[in-house]
Amino acid sequence: MSDQHVIATYIIETSLPLQRAAEVLAGEQSTGTFVRVERESDDLRARFAAQVESIDEIPLTGASPLPGSVGDPALRRRARLRLRFPLDNFGPSLPNLLAAVAGNLFEIKELAAIRLVDLELPPAFAERYPGPGFGVEGTRRLVGRPDGAMIGTIVKPSIGLSPADLAEVVSQLAEAGIDFIKDDELQGNGPSAPLAERVAAVMPVLERYADRHGRKPMYAFNITDDIGRLEANHDLVVAAGGTCVMACVNLIGLPGLEFLRRHSTVPIHGHRAMFGSFGRSEQVGIGFRAWQKLARLAGADHLHTNGISNKFYETDDQVLDSIAAVREPLLGLTPTVPVLSSGQWGGLAHATYAAVGTTDLLVLAGGGIHGHPDGAAAGVASMRDAWASAARGESADDAFATSPALRRAAELFGPVRV
Amino acid sequence: MSDQHVIATYIIETSLPLQRAAEVLAGEQSTGTFVRVERESDDLRARFAAQVESIDEIPLTGASPLPGSVGDPALRRRARLRLRFPLDNFGPSLPNLLAAVAGNLFEIKELAAIRLVDLELPPAFAERYPGPGFGVEGTRRLVGRPDGAMIGTIVKPSIGLSPADLAEVVSQLAEAGIDFIKDDELQGNGPSAPLAERVAAVMPVLERYADRHGRKPMYAFNITDDIGRLEANHDLVVAAGGTCVMACVNLIGLPGLEFLRRHSTVPIHGHRAMFGSFGRSEQVGIGFRAWQKLARLAGADHLHTNGISNKFYETDDQVLDSIAAVREPLLGLTPTVPVLSSGQWGGLAHATYAAVGTTDLLVLAGGGIHGHPDGAAAGVASMRDAWASAARGESADDAFATSPALRRAAELFGPVRV
Repeated sequence: MSDQHVIATYIIETSLPLQRAAEVLAGEQSTGTFVRVERESDDLRARFAAQVESIDEIPLTGASPLPGSVGDPALRRRARLRLRFPLDNFGPSLPNLLAAVAGNLFEIKELAAIRLVDLELPPAFAERYPGPGFGVEGTRRLVGRPDGAMIGTIVKPSIGLSPADLAEVVSQLAEAGIDFIKDDELQGNGPSAPLAERVAAVMPVLERYADRHGRKPMYAFNITDDIGRLEANHDLVVAAGGTCVMACVNLIGLPGLEFLRRHSTVPIHGHRAMFGSFGRSEQVGIGFRAWQKLARLAGADHLHTNGISNKFYETDDQVLDSIAAVREPLLGLTPTVPVLSSGQWGGLAHATYAAVGTTDLLVLAGGGIHGHPDGAAAGVASMRDAWASAARGESADDAFATSPALRRAAELFGPVRV
Repeated sequence: MSDQHVIATYIIETSLPLQRAAEVLAGEQSTGTFVRVERESDDLRARFAAQVESIDEIPLTGASPLPGSVGDPALRRRARLRLRFPLDNFGPSLPNLLAAVAGNLFEIKELAAIRLVDLELPPAFAERYPGPGFGVEGTRRLVGRPDGAMIGTIVKPSIGLSPADLAEVVSQLAEAGIDFIKDDELQGNGPSAPLAERVAAVMPVLERYADRHGRKPMYAFNITDDIGRLEANHDLVVAAGGTCVMACVNLIGLPGLEFLRRHSTVPIHGHRAMFGSFGRSEQVGIGFRAWQKLARLAGADHLHTNGISNKFYETDDQVLDSIAAVREPLLGLTPTVPVLSSGQWGGLAHATYAAVGTTDLLVLAGGGIHGHPDGAAAGVASMRDAWASAARGESADDAFATSPALRRAAELFGPVRV
C-alpha cells in the first residue's frame, strides 16, 4: 500500500450497479460533485479523486434498507468496497480524515446500507499522533502485575455512594487483591459526587494500601467533561497519587482524547460509551475495527472491547474480533490493552484465552467480584485462579478442581464456558 | 418541568412489556444495575434513579430489529418513551449528560430499536454554556444583509483548486453579490491546500470587494482539526479579516465546538458531516431534534439542516422539522441560523418559505449558483429574487413573471416547487 493513500473499507447495499455506486461514493467524498464543474480538469480529478480499489459482492442479509434509499429493491446487492483516498486531500489529521472517509456518505440516498468497517492508514498518522503513552507494559508496571490477566472491577452502585461509602468499597476491593478499579461511565463530575470528593475519598485508601503492600491498585477516575476541564481534572487525580484517568472517547470526541493524551502523565482508560449509536446497526455507521484504530492513534491506553457472554447485543464472534483488532499492530504504536467487561466471571477465562491466546488483558467483573458468594476477595481469587489456569494450558475442569473460589463462583454464575 | 431534571425522549422497540423495558433502560442509565447490590438503599434509588415519565405506544414500522436483540418477535411493540433523569447525577455538563441519556443504552439487547429523539434541558445548561455568540442578528450584521434570506454557496470543485483559482472563484462570487461562501467539509488543512494558503488567497479578494462596496461577504473557512490547532486556525482567519470559521461538529466533537466557542470572535458555521452515521437509521442513534440542542448549547451560530428536495436521504417533512427545531427557543440562547443546502435553487424558495415562515435563514446553493446558465451573478439574482418574492407573499408564478434570472434557472433546475 502506498504511504500517500488511505484505504477505507465499506459495506454497502445499493440498487445501482455496484461499480456505479462505488463511483458515486468516491466522487461525493473527494472531488465532491457528480456533475463536472468549471475548473474541474482531468488533471485535478486524477490527482484528488478517490479511486475504487476493489468491490467484492457479498450476500444480502435481509436487513431493512436505510430510510430514504432509492432504487428497485429487486436489484439490490451488497458488497464489500475498498476506496483509496489521496492523503494529500486531508493530511494526517484524524478529524479531516473522517470528513473524507465518513463525512456525508451516510446520507447518500443511492445507498441502502453504508458502513465504514476498516481503515488502512499510512505512517504519517503515527508521526503526528504518538498513540498510547503507556499501553500494556506501562499499565502492568503501574499496577505491579508483570504477567497474567489484570483483574479489575467497576464501583457499584454506579452512582449515589457517599465519599465514605466509596472509600469503604475501594478499601475492600484493594484488600481483595484487585489490580484495577474504575468509575462507572455515569459517574462524571456531578453535584452529588464531584470528582474532587471522589479523589479525596479514594486515593488515601489506595496510598495506605500501597504503603503496606508495595503495590498500588490502579483506579480509573472518570474525568470525562468539557475540553477546558480535562487538564484540571487530570491534574487533580495525578496530584493525589492517582495512576489512571478514564475518558469516554465518544463523549469527549476523538479530538478530545487526543488533546488529553498530549497532557496526560498516566494511562488513559478509554470507555466506548455511545459506540452503539453508530456501531450497532449492520446497515449504517462505523464498525469497531475502524473506530478502534482512531481511538488508539488518539492515545487510548485501554480500550473497551466487551467480553464473551456479555449482557449486551454483541455475539462472541464480534467481541473476539474486537479484541483481536485492538491487539493487531498499528503503525508501530505502543500496544493498547483490550478491556473485557460485562457479565465477566472466572468461568469465561478458558474460552476467552483459547480464542485470544494472551493475558495482556484487563478483565473487569462487576457482579463476578462484588457478587461472589464469599465476598470480593474470593471474587478476585476466582478470576485470578481461572486466568492463571488457562494461561498454564490447563482445562477449565483442572481450574475447578483446584480453585475453591472458582467452584463457589460457578454456583452463582455458571455454567462454565469451555 | 423541574429545573432539577432532564427529560429524554426515546423511540424504543422491544418484546418485553413496555413498562418493563422502560425500567431496564432507566436502571441501566442511572443506578446502573438491575440486581440490587450492597449499599444500594431505597433512599439511594429514590434520589438517583431515572424515572419513567410516560410511555406511548406507536405502530411498528416494519423495520428490521437491531442485531442481537432478543425476545419473541410476535410480542414486539414500539413506543415513545420519556425518562426523567436527576440533574444531580451528572450536572450541566454536555459530555456527562450524554453518558446518562445516550451512553450504553444503544447496546441493550432487550431493545430491538433505541433512538434518542429529544431532550428537555433545565436552565443550568444555559448558565454553563453561553450558546451562539452571533446567531441570526450577528451574522446579518457582519454580512450586511439586515433582512431577506442570506444567500450563499460552496466553493466548487470541493478540493483541488489552486490558490489562484480559488481567488478567482471567490472574486466572481463576490461580484455576483453573494452574502456567504463556504469551504467544502472535505477541504480541511491538507498539504494540497493548507488553510493558510486559502486564507491568503481569499481574504485580499474580499477586502478589496469590501473597500469598493462597503460590504464584506462572509467566508466560512473550514478550520476543523485537532483541538490543539483550532485556536491557531481561528486566529489565522481572524487576523486576515475573516468573519467566520466553519467546524464539522461531529468531527471535532461537541466538546471541541464548545472549546472553539470560548475562543472564537467570529460566528461558527456548524457543519453536520457524519450526522447520518448515528442519525439516519430509524432503529438506533440520535435524532436531529436532540442533536441540534446540544450543538446550539455548544455554540453553533449556523447549523446545517439540509433543504427540501435535497439530494440526500431526508424527506421534506424531516428537513422542515429540522429547520423548525433549530428555530425553536432554547433556554434563552441567541437564535442559531438554520443552513439550507443540497440541491437548492430559487424554485424551492416559495415552498420553503410557506413552510418555515421566515427569511432568517442561510440558503446555500452549489449548482444553483455556479451552474446557472448565465453565470454566478444570475444564479445569486435568481435566488434573491425568489426569496424576496416569497417573503412579500407572492406566488411562485409572480416571481417567475418578474425575474428573468429565475426563469433561466428553471430551464436547468425546474420544475418549480409551490
